[in-house]
Amino acid sequence: MQAGGRLNLLLIGFGHVARAFVRLLIPRRADIEAASGLATRVVGIATARHGCALVPDGIDDARAIALAEGYLGVSSIHALAGDPPRDAFALLDGAARQAWQGPLVAIETTTLDPRRGEPATGHIVRALAAGAHVVTANKGPIACAWDVVRQAAGRADRHVLFESTVMDGIPVFGLVRDTLPGVRVTALRGIVNATTNYVLGEMEEGRELGASLAEMQARGIAEADPLFDLEGWDAAAKAAALANVLMGAAITPESVRRCGITHLTAADVRGALDSGWRLKLVMRVTGEAGRVSASVGPERVHATDVLAQVHGTMCALTISTDLLGDVTIVQHGGSVAETAYGVLADLITLSRRL
Amino acid sequence: MQAGGRLNLLLIGFGHVARAFVRLLIPRRADIEAASGLATRVVGIATARHGCALVPDGIDDARAIALAEGYLGVSSIHALAGDPPRDAFALLDGAARQAWQGPLVAIETTTLDPRRGEPATGHIVRALAAGAHVVTANKGPIACAWDVVRQAAGRADRHVLFESTVMDGIPVFGLVRDTLPGVRVTALRGIVNATTNYVLGEMEEGRELGASLAEMQARGIAEADPLFDLEGWDAAAKAAALANVLMGAAITPESVRRCGITHLTAADVRGALDSGWRLKLVMRVTGEAGRVSASVGPERVHATDVLAQVHGTMCALTISTDLLGDVTIVQHGGSVAETAYGVLADLITLSRRL
Repeated sequence: MQAGGRLNLLLIGFGHVARAFVRLLIPRRADIEAASGLATRVVGIATARHGCALVPDGIDDARAIALAEGYLGVSSIHALAGDPPRDAFALLDGAARQAWQGPLVAIETTTLDPRRGEPATGHIVRALAAGAHVVTANKGPIACAWDVVRQAAGRADRHVLFESTVMDGIPVFGLVRDTLPGVRVTALRGIVNATTNYVLGEMEEGRELGASLAEMQARGIAEADPLFDLEGWDAAAKAAALANVLMGAAITPESVRRCGITHLTAADVRGALDSGWRLKLVMRVTGEAGRVSASVGPERVHATDVLAQVHGTMCALTISTDLLGDVTIVQHGGSVAETAYGVLADLITLSRRL
Repeated sequence: MQAGGRLNLLLIGFGHVARAFVRLLIPRRADIEAASGLATRVVGIATARHGCALVPDGIDDARAIALAEGYLGVSSIHALAGDPPRDAFALLDGAARQAWQGPLVAIETTTLDPRRGEPATGHIVRALAAGAHVVTANKGPIACAWDVVRQAAGRADRHVLFESTVMDGIPVFGLVRDTLPGVRVTALRGIVNATTNYVLGEMEEGRELGASLAEMQARGIAEADPLFDLEGWDAAAKAAALANVLMGAAITPESVRRCGITHLTAADVRGALDSGWRLKLVMRVTGEAGRVSASVGPERVHATDVLAQVHGTMCALTISTDLLGDVTIVQHGGSVAETAYGVLADLITLSRRL
């Protein structure tokens, strides 16, 4: 415990997840301080289109809420001489030049480019070089550039945590790391993309893909570019992240065998259902370190299988192990609030380690 | 890391679980030493009917295997002057009089008296008083005397770990403690007794309770006294343990509303199935600290519920939380090997903390 210390947060990206995180954090800062001795405060914010600001003394709660609610412009709060940093990289370089009392943590939640993992990977590497620990909700860097991230963290002697990248804060990485000591993960199988799972469920009711997708977009559940989900890229990125971290692989989303669901009709899905099966987009990872392979594609899952009862926006992952057999963890629904909790959980885990 | 230190194990109880634990431990001692700097060794064994022994310098691997396989009598290896200890309490008192290099850990796996929690609670309290940390596979003390155990651990400034008590080493306590920081558990619902779940599954196939029970006893899955499972006592003890630890309750198995499955017929179970439901023995815990209540009883679970697809000797627990919604963890089958892994996992967790 570092009594009187400070935990200085740089918010790299300030969209829905980062704003929900700030709202969750404010009422829990006292708990984090009681447990770790560290007083948490936001000292910088970088956005892509709404400016950046460094505030080395920290932003007070009233301003943090005004920022989170959008009542206050980010660049207006910049508290150093000269212009505000022009982007996240400049902000991280500026942070590196400050003398901080207590650890620095970059909270990376920028928009995902899941095939290249940029600019998130660049942000993380720059943050580590600036002496910051990293919490990211961005699966790109873990899926596309895990070795780069891991080696940069090792060189900088800093932590990188990313629990919200696969199942919105439901623990999958921490489950193995913290609660299954000594086991070897031998295989993974799961339903990890909520949009395709919802669409397939609607197809069981006879609605075609286009109709249910339009509804999900209207409700804000599906992305503006739905092909990322429907062609299996999101699930492939999660497969790569899980394979890299839990099974020692060094793969990318591009190397995941991938088939989406755009070719399926309601008749296909209903036909399976009438025979006691459900069509699900199933992610699989098998093999041992050095020759791990991953796939994503529609599969018939028998109604008596736990995965068959993963409905709507639920997700689930079965982790096969050498010592404990199979363990399945099920998420019963996720949204921005749960992703923000995953970021908070990583921050608490980090504060426990420091 | 305490380079050169020793982790001294006292095995209180030396039945199937403790023997399987020794077999798991031997090939993994080097990993534990690499991670914690502590060389693990068995320095004492207490059995109810086959004698006791204290061996302060530790038992070598060949002897440990001979003991685990039953080729070597326990009391024959006693290595101190005078008679071997007459029981576990005398062994713990004897251990308290030795000067140990490194931490002492009691591994408590004696036969369960789940309604009173004895003699396991007594063993744990005596072990803590002797300066030992405790790992127990025995749900009795956590279900019946959690306050006593917790307070004794606090007074002694020692750890008590018990991950194998509810789902055979599948993490339920660690899941909340280590991977869901900052959440409040608001309710629990699950299938936590494998014997009744297997019997209900057989009844779906038309076999009456008596026939499938006899088969389970022949296979060593059901206890010699099956009423402990069939009348819901095992599930009630698990409900109390979960409520006490995860929801701040102070209840015992006696205070759990409890109904077993002995009154059910195959016709009842098949009738539910024909209507799209499965009869399951469901454990529930609800309420807030100070007024938590728990129940165990048969319930109709709809076929589309994840819990309905918890078949045979599988178990599952849904944890409801304030910040992350519901999280379900599923065990796909358990046996002595998985329980022994739970004990090993607790020992590794303890060695990480020390």
